[in-house]
Amino acid sequence: MNILVVNAGSSSLKYQLMNMEDESIQAKGIVERIGMAGSFLKHSATGKETVQIELDAKNHVVAIKAVLEALTDSKIGVLKNIDEIDAVGHRVLHGGEKFTKSVVINQAVLDAIEEYIPLGPLHNPANLMGIEACEEAMPNVPMVAVFDTAFHQTMPKEAFMYGLPYEAYTKHKIRRYGFHGTSHYFVANKAAEVHGKDIKDLKIITCHIGNGASIAAVKYGECVDTSMGLTPLEGLVMGTRCGDIDPAIVPILMDKEGFTTQEMDTYMNKKSGVLGLSNNLSSDFRDLGNAFKEGNELAALALHVVAYRIKKYIGAYAAAMNGVDVIVFTAGVGENDSYIREMSIGTLNYLGVELDKEVNDKIHGKLATISTADSKVAVYVIPTNEELVIARDTQRLVNAE
Amino acid sequence: MNILVVNAGSSSLKYQLMNMEDESIQAKGIVERIGMAGSFLKHSATGKETVQIELDAKNHVVAIKAVLEALTDSKIGVLKNIDEIDAVGHRVLHGGEKFTKSVVINQAVLDAIEEYIPLGPLHNPANLMGIEACEEAMPNVPMVAVFDTAFHQTMPKEAFMYGLPYEAYTKHKIRRYGFHGTSHYFVANKAAEVHGKDIKDLKIITCHIGNGASIAAVKYGECVDTSMGLTPLEGLVMGTRCGDIDPAIVPILMDKEGFTTQEMDTYMNKKSGVLGLSNNLSSDFRDLGNAFKEGNELAALALHVVAYRIKKYIGAYAAAMNGVDVIVFTAGVGENDSYIREMSIGTLNYLGVELDKEVNDKIHGKLATISTADSKVAVYVIPTNEELVIARDTQRLVNAE
Repeated sequence: MNILVVNAGSSSLKYQLMNMEDESIQAKGIVERIGMAGSFLKHSATGKETVQIELDAKNHVVAIKAVLEALTDSKIGVLKNIDEIDAVGHRVLHGGEKFTKSVVINQAVLDAIEEYIPLGPLHNPANLMGIEACEEAMPNVPMVAVFDTAFHQTMPKEAFMYGLPYEAYTKHKIRRYGFHGTSHYFVANKAAEVHGKDIKDLKIITCHIGNGASIAAVKYGECVDTSMGLTPLEGLVMGTRCGDIDPAIVPILMDKEGFTTQEMDTYMNKKSGVLGLSNNLSSDFRDLGNAFKEGNELAALALHVVAYRIKKYIGAYAAAMNGVDVIVFTAGVGENDSYIREMSIGTLNYLGVELDKEVNDKIHGKLATISTADSKVAVYVIPTNEELVIARDTQRLVNAE
Repeated sequence: MNILVVNAGSSSLKYQLMNMEDESIQAKGIVERIGMAGSFLKHSATGKETVQIELDAKNHVVAIKAVLEALTDSKIGVLKNIDEIDAVGHRVLHGGEKFTKSVVINQAVLDAIEEYIPLGPLHNPANLMGIEACEEAMPNVPMVAVFDTAFHQTMPKEAFMYGLPYEAYTKHKIRRYGFHGTSHYFVANKAAEVHGKDIKDLKIITCHIGNGASIAAVKYGECVDTSMGLTPLEGLVMGTRCGDIDPAIVPILMDKEGFTTQEMDTYMNKKSGVLGLSNNLSSDFRDLGNAFKEGNELAALALHVVAYRIKKYIGAYAAAMNGVDVIVFTAGVGENDSYIREMSIGTLNYLGVELDKEVNDKIHGKLATISTADSKVAVYVIPTNEELVIARDTQRLVNAE
């Protein structure tokens, strides 16, 4: 079974073609600058050279057609024709409270994704465009929606409700939803496998630390809390997002700076995080790591604030679950930045976490145990694979139809 | 030495006269509705009847003069004349980064309190009015300012910086300051005394849970983190304050409801918390406890959200300090609400917290140990006494002059 995994953004479309016999990646790529001048497709089939093709991708339909052409091209492609694609799996940001798992896409699902546009104003419309473009290009291929929020929908009410008027929840659906669900799900299950225990017997804290970052508490296989909230702004200090702040700061800064609500949102989502803390040095943790080594104080501050917040969330979720057996680091920073890992968990001995600093220093982007042999809590670095979760869910649901 | 402790609000003035020989309260009371119609003084001298006196307190000067008259009145008073007041200690909300401890008030101190009005727009002007009124009424009596923020100024930078552009800190002084400092200081030190150890050897988490609520991590006698931030809105879910929320909710709700910044601030500070969560049932935890017993689901939700947040902060601060030896509950709810205490710490066995549920159920408003004899972490209920801290600081500083 060949499954095309699609992640459509407002001006981009990422894809991966997987052969589910052995879960191998046959080809992957991205269309960028959709709807803008200078759009292009970057495509690479496994074992072949990466190519970049100029496009006039005025919309997602043109983009997906270019992807299908590349996939079936005699030189750069991997398929004879489009019919060899058996199903398409779509990443969808926001499934609200309705979607607690992946679903085969039908009209009711499309309506619901549209209904949740106010909760995911940037992503859900783009996800819909991606789905509609694929429907147009491959009208007879079954499609599945995999929601970034779904895995977190097992949270108990005391974890997902804010201390706001109850009406904010009933009238505006304001509550904690959480994101990066497929990643937390994947690494939690992988961690149980590596740990050699049933996930139903484990308390796991998963730290997805990339340019966006979130932590989840996974108790006996179910998410019981996560750091992102109504939107992906809450929680940790990220590349350009502020994470948790005193909410009173928002009206205060709007008054002081004369910001509109839109400008304030941009300030918190695009100009804050380590980029803002480092006084615009960089949102990239590698740059900050280098600047820190050269003695840059604000780079050091930014990294230490990030790590301190991770540490506090790990502590909070250990409390939420009355303990923790396994801690996982994943995503760009989590898989690669040994300093952030050490600063986050190097002094959690009270919890039974004993970091093997020598091993930790050497681990970049690969599966590894970074706790010592006698650490009560196991700490793993696990490369995430959201596409694989999407492909597997798609295969399972399409086969069950 | 007789010390008058003054806590001036914008329309009220609370006071307590203490004899420092034995730290006994000689008299206490409050002037309410200052600057409004129907102002009055409620005064009670120890061992005498409480009296309520109608006033025309058009400002704080009139209010403090009425207090001094009551204190020296032959029937309801306790002093022969005003000269018997040796010093005045003032509670001041915001001392910014400048005041890390209490200080004798001089012009530079007054200027600084004024400078920090933008950080404490409601309280600092009222505190200043209280000080000025006392200066007018008792021109030769030394006065001391005790800041609500001072105890927290030992926080490291990674704990007090938000993930916002660095300029927000340098230009607008936006950072975590913390509040309830005198209370956290008092109960932390009292806890060390009760525990029979030097506070310099202890990791203590102090939970000041009243209508306003905050938690502090006190490591070896110094505050290293606290849940309130730039303002007293951040952190726990309180009587009417929302505590931590996704900051993106603020511009979203402003757009949806058409709120101004001032209306949004009021929404978060006055209409949220357990009052909002319970759909306006009550901001009083006793009312909610009763409604919960009668099966009210939103009352239950409000209480469980409050307790869950306390639990998570305790976990976070245990992580921040790499362990905890002592947990303290204080203030109205913390001293009296055994259900909130049980829901907060009843399942922190991983941390070595073993609650004695039978004892806990019986403890209301008095000093007690509520952990079991073999609990690794000791849990105490300790009635707070901010006035005593203010009086002691005032005595010490005035004697040192």
